[in-house]
Amino acid sequence: MRIARFSIDGNVGFGVLEGDEIDVIKGHPFAEFERSGQKVPLDKVRLLPPVLPNKVVAVGRNYAAHAAELGHDVSDAPFTFFKPSTSVVGPGDPIAYPSFSEEVHHEAELAVVIGRMCREVPRERVKDVILGYTCANDVTARDVQRREKQWARAKGFDTSCPLGPWVETELDPSDLTIQCTVNGEQRQLGRTSEMVRSVEDLIVHITEAMTLLPGDVVLTGTPAGVGPLTVGDEVAVTIEGIGTLTNKVIKRG
Amino acid sequence: MRIARFSIDGNVGFGVLEGDEIDVIKGHPFAEFERSGQKVPLDKVRLLPPVLPNKVVAVGRNYAAHAAELGHDVSDAPFTFFKPSTSVVGPGDPIAYPSFSEEVHHEAELAVVIGRMCREVPRERVKDVILGYTCANDVTARDVQRREKQWARAKGFDTSCPLGPWVETELDPSDLTIQCTVNGEQRQLGRTSEMVRSVEDLIVHITEAMTLLPGDVVLTGTPAGVGPLTVGDEVAVTIEGIGTLTNKVIKRG
Repeated sequence: MRIARFSIDGNVGFGVLEGDEIDVIKGHPFAEFERSGQKVPLDKVRLLPPVLPNKVVAVGRNYAAHAAELGHDVSDAPFTFFKPSTSVVGPGDPIAYPSFSEEVHHEAELAVVIGRMCREVPRERVKDVILGYTCANDVTARDVQRREKQWARAKGFDTSCPLGPWVETELDPSDLTIQCTVNGEQRQLGRTSEMVRSVEDLIVHITEAMTLLPGDVVLTGTPAGVGPLTVGDEVAVTIEGIGTLTNKVIKRG
Repeated sequence: MRIARFSIDGNVGFGVLEGDEIDVIKGHPFAEFERSGQKVPLDKVRLLPPVLPNKVVAVGRNYAAHAAELGHDVSDAPFTFFKPSTSVVGPGDPIAYPSFSEEVHHEAELAVVIGRMCREVPRERVKDVILGYTCANDVTARDVQRREKQWARAKGFDTSCPLGPWVETELDPSDLTIQCTVNGEQRQLGRTSEMVRSVEDLIVHITEAMTLLPGDVVLTGTPAGVGPLTVGDEVAVTIEGIGTLTNKVIKRG
């Protein structure tokens, strides 16, 4: 099932994708809900970020080939960082090139959407706390990341976390193609099977330390091929079984 | 004016401190409000975290003497990191010693409470976006911080961000005594005048990248004297002109 969040005529709602229509949800996807049978055409709505995370927890260097291209290895302990709620935008929303960077990179990532409040999740229960999966772009000011020891500004600036286009709830995340194109040209290509730490590993590792809330998002790392974005570029993240998240890069106004 | 958030008989509210009483607020401290004249005794309420931040933005190595004690200098670019909303607790709440660390440290800090949504704040407007100040303890799993390159787990675990006891709205933050005691014994002592980057500098630096929301909190760094906490310890952060934030360390249950 694909759950989209959308606005139409000023109203915001959730719905289930059925072909080129959205069946509007009564209730909330994080609780009990049913399909209303009231349908709106997909091309008449504006898709919004499919969730409003309280926090986004991301993992560094989770694909060995990407770690290598930045001159690192993956033998260190896993490490995690946050992207704030204020960095999240939806499909079709602009990525605003920040004023304090001259080297903004795309990073295509599989995003895990958390479905229920959880802490210290045992490996065998991980599937129970996941609502589904969506595409993410962990947009990064690479020059700022090099200069500043911790990455709150480099990876937390406004519009640095596009999410979408919807949440796919029935998906085995273990071996999916993940791709990033810029202006239609392929830049990143990998498979989620190349992850150093699996989705299960990451949820166990993160919730050992902190509570995750419904709607929180876990980013699972990016495959090789990261590279620069410039104003005017259209960047697209496509994940097998989910769909494509497309955003245009604009000058920050 | 000191604004406290509290619960009494299951009701949660804000109020203005007057001696040993709280004058309950009608409205919300981030908008228009008035004092109701209805007063509750301070010793009859449970004080809560004075704000519920969407994010806490903290700064590293902002007191030269603390940077030196950890073997660093402050000549690098400033760097910032996040503590998530799920790490926030209030005055009197326990700090739960995390299972994945054997070296948890206290870090007494002046906390800035943001009063209005803001981005790219010019230096001369910084005072307009600040609601007031409170005490914070940037509790840190020092061993994890050394092992993991980014600090989401080391500084973002549940209960790692005590805030309180209230927000002082009339305060010049430029030269205040900041102190941390453990079981009544002094561990940290400094003055906010020793900050490498002032409150103004930090707000300008952070909002160059990201939007701050009402209730968001900026932590301004810790003076020298950080050290270990053990289960059973009572740790207190006292800042001149604000008050004392006290928390007890317990075993994580």
